[in-house]
Amino acid sequence: MWETNTLVNLLGIKYPIIQAGMAGGATTPELVAAVSNAGGLGTLGAGYLSPHAIREAVREIRRLTDKPFAVNLMVTEPASADRDAIDKMQGILKRFEKDLGEPFSFENLSLDPQPFEEQLEIVLDEKVPVFSFTFGIPKPFWLEKLKANGTVIIGTATNVQEGLALERAGVNAIVAQGSEAGGHRGTFFKNAENEGIGTMALIPQMVDRVKLPVIASGGIMDGRGVVASLALGAAGVQMGTAFLTSEESGIHPVYKEAIRKARDDQTVMTKAFSGKKARGIENQYIRVMRDFEADILPYPIQNALTKPLRNAAKKHGNKEYMSLWAGQAASLSQNAPAKQIVENVVRDVERVLGILSAMHASSHLPKA
Amino acid sequence: MWETNTLVNLLGIKYPIIQAGMAGGATTPELVAAVSNAGGLGTLGAGYLSPHAIREAVREIRRLTDKPFAVNLMVTEPASADRDAIDKMQGILKRFEKDLGEPFSFENLSLDPQPFEEQLEIVLDEKVPVFSFTFGIPKPFWLEKLKANGTVIIGTATNVQEGLALERAGVNAIVAQGSEAGGHRGTFFKNAENEGIGTMALIPQMVDRVKLPVIASGGIMDGRGVVASLALGAAGVQMGTAFLTSEESGIHPVYKEAIRKARDDQTVMTKAFSGKKARGIENQYIRVMRDFEADILPYPIQNALTKPLRNAAKKHGNKEYMSLWAGQAASLSQNAPAKQIVENVVRDVERVLGILSAMHASSHLPKA
Repeated sequence: MWETNTLVNLLGIKYPIIQAGMAGGATTPELVAAVSNAGGLGTLGAGYLSPHAIREAVREIRRLTDKPFAVNLMVTEPASADRDAIDKMQGILKRFEKDLGEPFSFENLSLDPQPFEEQLEIVLDEKVPVFSFTFGIPKPFWLEKLKANGTVIIGTATNVQEGLALERAGVNAIVAQGSEAGGHRGTFFKNAENEGIGTMALIPQMVDRVKLPVIASGGIMDGRGVVASLALGAAGVQMGTAFLTSEESGIHPVYKEAIRKARDDQTVMTKAFSGKKARGIENQYIRVMRDFEADILPYPIQNALTKPLRNAAKKHGNKEYMSLWAGQAASLSQNAPAKQIVENVVRDVERVLGILSAMHASSHLPKA
Repeated sequence: MWETNTLVNLLGIKYPIIQAGMAGGATTPELVAAVSNAGGLGTLGAGYLSPHAIREAVREIRRLTDKPFAVNLMVTEPASADRDAIDKMQGILKRFEKDLGEPFSFENLSLDPQPFEEQLEIVLDEKVPVFSFTFGIPKPFWLEKLKANGTVIIGTATNVQEGLALERAGVNAIVAQGSEAGGHRGTFFKNAENEGIGTMALIPQMVDRVKLPVIASGGIMDGRGVVASLALGAAGVQMGTAFLTSEESGIHPVYKEAIRKARDDQTVMTKAFSGKKARGIENQYIRVMRDFEADILPYPIQNALTKPLRNAAKKHGNKEYMSLWAGQAASLSQNAPAKQIVENVVRDVERVLGILSAMHASSHLPKA
């Protein structure tokens, strides 16, 4: 029954296991297709891709699978910052040139995000089966077009108020992102002082308040996390970090290794890379940037400005300057093909359900 | 079976449900005894009590129940602060006198904590069945004495490294405190930048690394949270906020009401009341004190200095200046006698186990 719930029916998949749409190169068409072929829902993290690149990736995914898959975008508005503030941040970033052994060029660097509505046009034009988003809610115009197109829509909420707003906007399911989650917080109603609500607390409160299927995310790495989510009332799970270390994942090998070795207390929330709060493994860059917190520019400007630094870090395999996004249970990750990760999780779900089932059977209380 | 696991046997209780030892007046002897009489483990939060008051409370608990119960203490070392810093903080606190309608007196205010070892002497002398602690690890001398006394020892960890240290020290079980938890963080290995690990991520990593029974805490309010914890590998749960609103809880009625009304995103981590990070419902005091973060003194000095303010807030029923400790799932709390809260949780555990059991039974995969 756990593989035949409302979410599975809604998405047309076998297991209620969604691979998160992580932007930044992790979600290769091979990863997306492998997860979908294994019975989960693969997701292309397309937030930083040009409309053209999204189209290419979607077509490649379709060459690799005939199963449903999702494209994930960030609802991004261009931000602004004055020239002095930008110059100041470039000056700060230039301190790291020596460590990375090369100068950063800020010439020809576009400070604007990929145009969200042009990205969305591709999702529509390619009739992508599932569209998921984060950082906000697309305008009603777009949600209506997606529905008319037959696309299933999944929004991301980090608290109950956001979940209710998504439900009112007419999405089909809600990812409830707990504070354990790696990468960017999906928060769009600001409570700046709050570092995020843990999955254990968020899911039951969300489930009690929204009618839509709730997809648990944040700290879920194996069958234990999946069954815990089902116990809390979720219809399924979204797993990001668990797939970052998959064979098909496009991240740098030193980043994969850092995830495998990360202790539970080694991730932190930082705005230093992108201007928006995100959870990653603490490194030298994050530590140094604590002294410049007031100078960090809003997303996506900060993100654009750190691109030369991040590119140099990748080129030299220097993990101290990469954005090592990872959740708080990174140490439970596996190096394996994505298909095997899905299969391992499914087997583990069955194992844990078996244990709980035995607990229920031997309970002294009268059965309902 | 869920009520007959190792933890239940270790503690001599019926259900693996521990009422957290919250200091500050919540855990009346009536609450402790009611939880123990209902089949859980009641805990006296004795951290701020004098040795004499602990003895009185323990004797009162024993008049009310013949079941096992626990006493919880904070492993506290006296801190120091110079006179200027103390004067400065008193000056800052005096700003709030007008809001509370009375002057604060800092005369005759002891800046020292209750003497931990004298408190512990009472635990030994009264042969308390279970001793739990937080904020550190008592010296081997004391742990040996407790063991010789037949007392079961439970330590508190907020990450795997702390759990391993507790195991090496020889405790009998470990409370793994997730970031959702209300009240003080039990952290004793410092990672100041980390706001805490969510329960969903903490429990499986802890379970994989320690051999002792792990007790999940943080965001657990009902049967859903208990079963989720069991799925993650915990042997039982510790619930604090769930018992703060019980009839027997000694907290102020306006504090109880604030818990019942708290939205999921309304708790924050603050050092403003005690000098040590703790999670509570955001109020005026916490907001104003953000401007004086650098002036906050170490625990327990800050705690002593805010006593007149907290006492005045209680006297006037003003929740804007009370320490409204609460976890991130406070909205799931119930106003009911503690016995009924335990019974409701137990019934809900059976309900959720029943749902998961049906999922397992109808699964298409071969059964193990």
